[in-house]
Amino acid sequence: MKAIPEEKEQNPLLNLRELVEGELDKVDELIFSLIASKIDLIPEISEHTISSGGKRLRPILTLASSKMCGYENSDEANINLAACVEFIHTATLLHDDVVDKSDLRRGKVTANSLWGNKESILVGDFLLGKAFSLMGSAKSLDVYRILSNAAVVISEGEVMQLAATGNIEAATRQYEDIIKAKTAELFAAACEVGGVISNKSEAECAALRDYGMNLGIAFQIADDVLDYSQDAKLLGKNVGDDFKDRKVTLPLIIAYKQANEIERGFWERVIDENHQEEGDLEDAISLIKKHNALEKSMQKAMDYADSARKSMDIFPDSDIKPALLSVLDFAVQRKF
Amino acid sequence: MKAIPEEKEQNPLLNLRELVEGELDKVDELIFSLIASKIDLIPEISEHTISSGGKRLRPILTLASSKMCGYENSDEANINLAACVEFIHTATLLHDDVVDKSDLRRGKVTANSLWGNKESILVGDFLLGKAFSLMGSAKSLDVYRILSNAAVVISEGEVMQLAATGNIEAATRQYEDIIKAKTAELFAAACEVGGVISNKSEAECAALRDYGMNLGIAFQIADDVLDYSQDAKLLGKNVGDDFKDRKVTLPLIIAYKQANEIERGFWERVIDENHQEEGDLEDAISLIKKHNALEKSMQKAMDYADSARKSMDIFPDSDIKPALLSVLDFAVQRKF
Repeated sequence: MKAIPEEKEQNPLLNLRELVEGELDKVDELIFSLIASKIDLIPEISEHTISSGGKRLRPILTLASSKMCGYENSDEANINLAACVEFIHTATLLHDDVVDKSDLRRGKVTANSLWGNKESILVGDFLLGKAFSLMGSAKSLDVYRILSNAAVVISEGEVMQLAATGNIEAATRQYEDIIKAKTAELFAAACEVGGVISNKSEAECAALRDYGMNLGIAFQIADDVLDYSQDAKLLGKNVGDDFKDRKVTLPLIIAYKQANEIERGFWERVIDENHQEEGDLEDAISLIKKHNALEKSMQKAMDYADSARKSMDIFPDSDIKPALLSVLDFAVQRKF
Repeated sequence: MKAIPEEKEQNPLLNLRELVEGELDKVDELIFSLIASKIDLIPEISEHTISSGGKRLRPILTLASSKMCGYENSDEANINLAACVEFIHTATLLHDDVVDKSDLRRGKVTANSLWGNKESILVGDFLLGKAFSLMGSAKSLDVYRILSNAAVVISEGEVMQLAATGNIEAATRQYEDIIKAKTAELFAAACEVGGVISNKSEAECAALRDYGMNLGIAFQIADDVLDYSQDAKLLGKNVGDDFKDRKVTLPLIIAYKQANEIERGFWERVIDENHQEEGDLEDAISLIKKHNALEKSMQKAMDYADSARKSMDIFPDSDIKPALLSVLDFAVQRKF
């Protein structure tokens, strides 16, 4: 066993990335060949969004799942589907930027702020189309069903989130449904197709799906926690973006559930009544800290990570399994 | 043969619509069952956009093409693919409304103006996802390739159009490429898949594709002509929307090519330099009329309609063939 350099101990994703490095290079090659277009704006915007320091987490999951399942086929469905999930993810980012008016993503300005709404929407559509073209590579109706369903569910999640914005009650009721749909579904699909193209049993494919789903939920909760953390800046985000956008996430939900009457009034004013004043973000963070809402949120994320870990019991030991499990640490170990 | 009521003589599309009426009802049923979602906004926005007086031209083409080719199969791929092309079209409308800031479409206010940009984008994504889910119905990799490729090409066309907006030279060079991609490609795909699911020969499928492509080009040119016509109002559009959006279409291109120096200065000011004043639309229409640019555009549309007609020579006579050919009249007979 190779010694693990310090950097890898800090970032558990790097172990897994190294195990699929050869395949990941091919995925990148495929991605950049597919965004080539005689219309300059398309590769410009696509490259900007795909290259903006993305971790390639979703394609890595497809590559690693299929590798763990012993995928061996000259048709490179693993590479094609890994690129497919990255394209679906990138299209979502592009459309989400329009939606969120977010200024920073992963430390870089968004395509939307550089090129405008119209361009972001249309290039997102282009990438979605390319994603669907890639699905055909596996020549499997199951793969097709899983990934096209994921695309439907993601958009439902985004609409659900939009409808619950500025509405604490609705968002509280639907928080889990929303993050499952908008984030975890693609993680689940990315893992599941790795099993399907390797001709694994229904139970094994379902286990991969469960792993991905729970990992995705944990990942999104951690993301929502980071939004209230000073470390957000390290990730190139603005602290309190969700608050300013009146997006009700788990830390806020926990603080709201434990709020006294005055605190309740505060939350309803800033979220439901859309009346935010200078200093409100600082007050919101104080209330979230007062109720230990970040720690409690992270505990919830770790519970989901545990469920994900258990789903993997069905698979025998291998080089790749512990590296896949360590992605769970990556998802929840980001500091707050 | 039944007598043709006067209304049908006026609208050649009605003949064809009647021949596929039973199937079209099933398509509508399928469409409305698929846009059902626990998230209210999704059926609301989808229904609004799909019901806004749409002619169902594209699904009718799929139904009619497959009927002419003798499609007979209990799996109802014809119904599924007809719904698929309507969903792709509707998603494009939703995303295009964001893009065009158009206030009226087919006589009704757009989803975008009623619900906002974000909602239009996300529900468009939902419909695109559903469209891709429907492609699987034919269990044919060819169908899959044709329709997912169409989705890619449409978005390329939209980006191309966007990049050429406000740029007479670029738009003049690319006009045909743009309308082929953004409009005619889906007509071509809608017809071609009708042949593919009926197991027709490569030559027959290619003929259907040619018919759809040329019909689509003729249709789009007629649409661009209508934008400068008082009849635009009858269709629920605003006269001169393209002009105000600095979208360079065939009537403008023809007028520009024949312009004297002063006229050239006018076009460059209002389009390239984005400096429009009161009365400019009226002046633009006068210049377009002076150079007979509407008539010349329509002549071009009729040339494409003739090409479409010739493509159909490969098919034997049938009930449905003359009705399909009469769609060409529908495309170009709209008044200006």
